[in-house]
Amino acid sequence: MGPIAVAIHGGCGTLARDLQGEAQWEETRQHLAASLRAAWAILRSGGRALDAVEAAVVVLEDSPHFNAGYGAALTEAGDHELDASIMDGATLAAGGVCAVRTLRNPVRAARAVMERSDCVLITGPAADEFGRRCGLDVVPNDHFTTARRVEALAALKARARRGTIVPASEAERHGTVGAVALDREGHLAAATSTGGFNNKPSGRVGDSPIVGAGTYARDGVCAVSGTGQGEIFMRRVAAYDVAARMRYGGASLDEATRAVVFEDLHSHGIGAGLVAVDAGGGIVAPYNTLGMARGWIGADAAVRVGTHAEMIEMGAA
Amino acid sequence: MGPIAVAIHGGCGTLARDLQGEAQWEETRQHLAASLRAAWAILRSGGRALDAVEAAVVVLEDSPHFNAGYGAALTEAGDHELDASIMDGATLAAGGVCAVRTLRNPVRAARAVMERSDCVLITGPAADEFGRRCGLDVVPNDHFTTARRVEALAALKARARRGTIVPASEAERHGTVGAVALDREGHLAAATSTGGFNNKPSGRVGDSPIVGAGTYARDGVCAVSGTGQGEIFMRRVAAYDVAARMRYGGASLDEATRAVVFEDLHSHGIGAGLVAVDAGGGIVAPYNTLGMARGWIGADAAVRVGTHAEMIEMGAA
Repeated sequence: MGPIAVAIHGGCGTLARDLQGEAQWEETRQHLAASLRAAWAILRSGGRALDAVEAAVVVLEDSPHFNAGYGAALTEAGDHELDASIMDGATLAAGGVCAVRTLRNPVRAARAVMERSDCVLITGPAADEFGRRCGLDVVPNDHFTTARRVEALAALKARARRGTIVPASEAERHGTVGAVALDREGHLAAATSTGGFNNKPSGRVGDSPIVGAGTYARDGVCAVSGTGQGEIFMRRVAAYDVAARMRYGGASLDEATRAVVFEDLHSHGIGAGLVAVDAGGGIVAPYNTLGMARGWIGADAAVRVGTHAEMIEMGAA
Repeated sequence: MGPIAVAIHGGCGTLARDLQGEAQWEETRQHLAASLRAAWAILRSGGRALDAVEAAVVVLEDSPHFNAGYGAALTEAGDHELDASIMDGATLAAGGVCAVRTLRNPVRAARAVMERSDCVLITGPAADEFGRRCGLDVVPNDHFTTARRVEALAALKARARRGTIVPASEAERHGTVGAVALDREGHLAAATSTGGFNNKPSGRVGDSPIVGAGTYARDGVCAVSGTGQGEIFMRRVAAYDVAARMRYGGASLDEATRAVVFEDLHSHGIGAGLVAVDAGGGIVAPYNTLGMARGWIGADAAVRVGTHAEMIEMGAA
């Protein structure tokens, strides 16, 4: 039986430490750990990487601490448009949704697109309707709204009205959650889900629902989920570029992800990060911002999570 | 001054020869030639590859013979949802729209997204509204409707009602138009535009608006525009994969595109084709179907177009 591994991120737009109380940071870490444990329980019992990444992302979507599902960023119109995707490295099957408004867990909708439609990507109200017909949880759009996002949007709009030239902080710009996993059969999978960013234009689609941009998995190579300014991930085809550097260029996972995050994406002056796992269970989580909510469980079965530089052990999986 | 080149496709879903009269085939070839000449006039006078591919695609969008713009396929709901993208190999800037319904030339909307928004991809009514605000031509949705598509949709639906197990023909499935070009400055660009396929589910997004899937350009490497079952291009990240095989694997344009079309895409049992140009002005146009509407102008400045195996010279550019 081969190694198993899971890694997750909760976005490279981590708040500065002093912008949130310790109780909130602790809850953030607990939710990261819960996400990892949900995936690990599946992997440990011989389950599929695909199921593990979906389970991990569902936990993060349901947490208010991350910009996906409940707690998602608000558009310029003050509502939510959610994007997600999932990819099965065993078959290169993939599914995604963009600009959905009423599905509690967009990653489940992405999975349904992959398995229950002939499409890879469905957009807008048709995606909501597809998810509803598949029996997924339907919620009103304001289910996703939290006080923190309402305040952040109001502050951004107030600054814009005053003409204050203060660029949006990384925390305001770069949410997104994602997971990558390797199962006992050697299959890799990746999933990503996001609310975009505060004050995003209605109809804007980022990298998270796009195969090759924000999400990619291929058995024998790697699984990748990205976070950061999605437009640059799209232009760089960043998630697939990690795999291409390994497949065609002979790079290791560490070399490939470092080149993508610290050279290619960084060269555009944007915040960027990702989590990735390779076919041997190696895990990396590079980012170029102040912090990135993240965590993993690898060979030693310890649960490790972090929001800034240091990683904290949260006990055994 | 370096070489210039342009290549276009009008989809790998060419009709069987006997399904259309010779006058219709001749008009198809004339429209392909007009598209090439529009691009060539720009390139020859020192203009940008980006402008050339946009101009070439606009001609194909306005022709009823191709599945993009006027003459686009109809969705299952009997209307049109159009996707397009464009990419500038000089900067890796890109823009795309999906599921637009009222913009006469979706490729122009993609260009506007690239140059006049902070987005790479805008979906649905927000994309229509963005295009309108940019001053693009707005038309009613039925502007795009032609008798041929209405009849094709009716025939498909009648077969479905009878339960006849006749798979949709390549011609019913694989439209799309696209262009790639190299300009005197050595810059590459690519653009793709489509109506999807007849009877497509509303909200379905294919590869055409997706950077790396249906469209890709990078100076010094190649420009690619694809046609075929979009879902497989998305799962294979096909357009960028051509570039990755060249960048990291040292493949030539011919080797890279053959591997993608005749090995990777073909392995899924789908119809697929593409046009591509490399940094030296080399042109390829592989496809695995009965035919692919296509054409190019290269070093000898002759206009060559074809819809099935043979290429026909249409005079000097």
